[in-house]
Amino acid sequence: MDRFEVNNGELCLGGLPLSQLAERVGQTPFYAYERQHMARRVAAVRAALPVGVGLHYAVKANPMAAVVGFVRPLVDGLDVASAGEMKVALDAGADPRQVSFAGPGKREAELRQAVAAGVLVNLESMREVGLLAQVSSQLGLPARVAVRVNPDFELRGAGMRMGGGAKPFGVDAERVPAVLQAVGQAGLAFEGFHVYAGSQNLQGARIAEALHQSLELVLRLAEHVPAPVRHVNLGGGWGIPYFPTESALDLGPVSVALLAVQARLAQRLPSARLVLELGRYLVGEAGVYVARVLDRKTSHGQVFLVTDGGLHHHLAASGNFGQVIRRNYPVAIGNRMGAPDRETVTVVGPLCTPLDVLAERMELAQAQPGDLVVVFQSGAYGASASPQAFLGHPACPEVLV
Amino acid sequence: MDRFEVNNGELCLGGLPLSQLAERVGQTPFYAYERQHMARRVAAVRAALPVGVGLHYAVKANPMAAVVGFVRPLVDGLDVASAGEMKVALDAGADPRQVSFAGPGKREAELRQAVAAGVLVNLESMREVGLLAQVSSQLGLPARVAVRVNPDFELRGAGMRMGGGAKPFGVDAERVPAVLQAVGQAGLAFEGFHVYAGSQNLQGARIAEALHQSLELVLRLAEHVPAPVRHVNLGGGWGIPYFPTESALDLGPVSVALLAVQARLAQRLPSARLVLELGRYLVGEAGVYVARVLDRKTSHGQVFLVTDGGLHHHLAASGNFGQVIRRNYPVAIGNRMGAPDRETVTVVGPLCTPLDVLAERMELAQAQPGDLVVVFQSGAYGASASPQAFLGHPACPEVLV
Repeated sequence: MDRFEVNNGELCLGGLPLSQLAERVGQTPFYAYERQHMARRVAAVRAALPVGVGLHYAVKANPMAAVVGFVRPLVDGLDVASAGEMKVALDAGADPRQVSFAGPGKREAELRQAVAAGVLVNLESMREVGLLAQVSSQLGLPARVAVRVNPDFELRGAGMRMGGGAKPFGVDAERVPAVLQAVGQAGLAFEGFHVYAGSQNLQGARIAEALHQSLELVLRLAEHVPAPVRHVNLGGGWGIPYFPTESALDLGPVSVALLAVQARLAQRLPSARLVLELGRYLVGEAGVYVARVLDRKTSHGQVFLVTDGGLHHHLAASGNFGQVIRRNYPVAIGNRMGAPDRETVTVVGPLCTPLDVLAERMELAQAQPGDLVVVFQSGAYGASASPQAFLGHPACPEVLV
Repeated sequence: MDRFEVNNGELCLGGLPLSQLAERVGQTPFYAYERQHMARRVAAVRAALPVGVGLHYAVKANPMAAVVGFVRPLVDGLDVASAGEMKVALDAGADPRQVSFAGPGKREAELRQAVAAGVLVNLESMREVGLLAQVSSQLGLPARVAVRVNPDFELRGAGMRMGGGAKPFGVDAERVPAVLQAVGQAGLAFEGFHVYAGSQNLQGARIAEALHQSLELVLRLAEHVPAPVRHVNLGGGWGIPYFPTESALDLGPVSVALLAVQARLAQRLPSARLVLELGRYLVGEAGVYVARVLDRKTSHGQVFLVTDGGLHHHLAASGNFGQVIRRNYPVAIGNRMGAPDRETVTVVGPLCTPLDVLAERMELAQAQPGDLVVVFQSGAYGASASPQAFLGHPACPEVLV
């Protein structure tokens, strides 16, 4: 975990002590994302990538306009998952040639918007070929397409598998030749392939293995392409550690694999550029969620810190977003960092539901009403992936510092 | 399950065939809630309640303004969980004297709004006594309060336990006398008690047992009150069946218990009115979520129906809201009800995440793109409890028919 500065026992974000930042925001709860942290992370990734490998940012991880605007010039392109995200990417100044659009259920209107914008569409089914052919002829613009392949292997070690076996994502490898033929017949502008095996992987060796497997799959399928392959997106899925049992991803094996993959790609498909798309890995550790302690209650010997923030803003930290067993995100009392007096408490939110828990029986600095609870590792899949309207509480502001 | 009308193989809502309703809404996905269904349900509850027992609607279950406006004249009061919900209740024309406000983490500004509105505040801690005393003196209005008690028993059979053991909700029973004393000293307008043991209970006998236990607890605590008890809210927690293994709640034992509880209350605390608050039970079965099939894909022999709706609109149906093991909500192809050709399919949404599943390997009528997938039991904790901004898709309209 790449940590934030601490000054006089207070967490600092973007150079501001947390309590001052809360005053600047004018309320709690809020999300804060640190520019410097993101820039450091992008630099570390660049250092691990062979020269020439494209680095894309997957907007879905954190679509805040200011974040996308900050990250955009640091990377080579943006990946979007809806027309809404495409708008964010284009508003941020992305070159449409460097924007790609994936998603298993794109609406016809979205495909039309994508063609009008000139972004690359990752085809997920034969249906999309037909729709894009229509739209292309109506608009007089050939749709730019890549084929998203459901790989015939699984990304071992992934928190969420998105390829291998029966999946709604992409086209099964054995059906890809037929789709490629249809793409050619429809006169779409074929540009390459997209293979995404899974996300939140913390094992460098597994990611390396998947990169090799993905490349071999692409090379096999490339025998059927209707035009030269220019773009090979081998996904991302690089994880960040959320729980004490997890360690940061070792980029060493990934880096080695990328060198080999790039060399082999250059030899076999010289017109193709290798691209990676990373979301959570670029921004997840750069953000925190901050809530204020409203009340300190004891019930049957257990101390509860009741805060003004909870699952309506941070569903994942409450354990209700993909987790089977709830585990505590890293949490601290941000204005009492390193305080010697500690105690075991449960941190809850303001909602009338037992699901609204930010930390369960966790050892934290002793806190009082007014103190600031910080949930780390909250820069990705936080604000945008939470039921903000739940129980009628105000939406959560986000700041980039 | 109180079912909807089916006409010529098509589900009808509010008298409209589903496909026509979709045209009226002008898009998919959408939520639709049926007035008639809610009215029938309220009538059934009234029939089971002894005369004189107050019936409140818990706005959190479905805070759509039109729903609250429709239900409000059918019930005796509204319960809210935030200042946002209080606004919805007052906008719907609720008499503030019949509105109560519960929540373990009420912000000071919310308490101020509650006192200014004249609603009943369910006190959840000693802190709230102090804050309300301040606010009352500043506004020159005595805060109306009830004490929410964390019961010293558990609601057996509840899907979610909200009382018994260490809990952030309410005041532990043994601490209530001290809170009552503080309420009296602070000059707050004491009106009664609130006991809520748990939610989503399908066992009438267990609810009956909890009603008896709650009443005895209230009678014990009533020895310490600073003013006559006028209001005894014994909660609700009546469940609805979501899964094939579940059966509808039998109101028989609940009805019998309420008669006995009401009689004992009348004898011991003649000034007190017994009140129940129901949310999900009144509106949960009256609503459906409707999404359109965009694509029909086969992957490794499995059929996927890819729809334009998913977890961003209906988190609970995806299994990511309190469930440990994902189970299918009741789902049907709404324009092919009773069709003889059936098949086992997985229904997914448009999101790039394997969590976005509306039905997993479920037998449904054979469907094609354009068909309408209906998720039943979706009138409560649907639209408002889902991460609607996730992945940049448009928010979901709701209609009351």
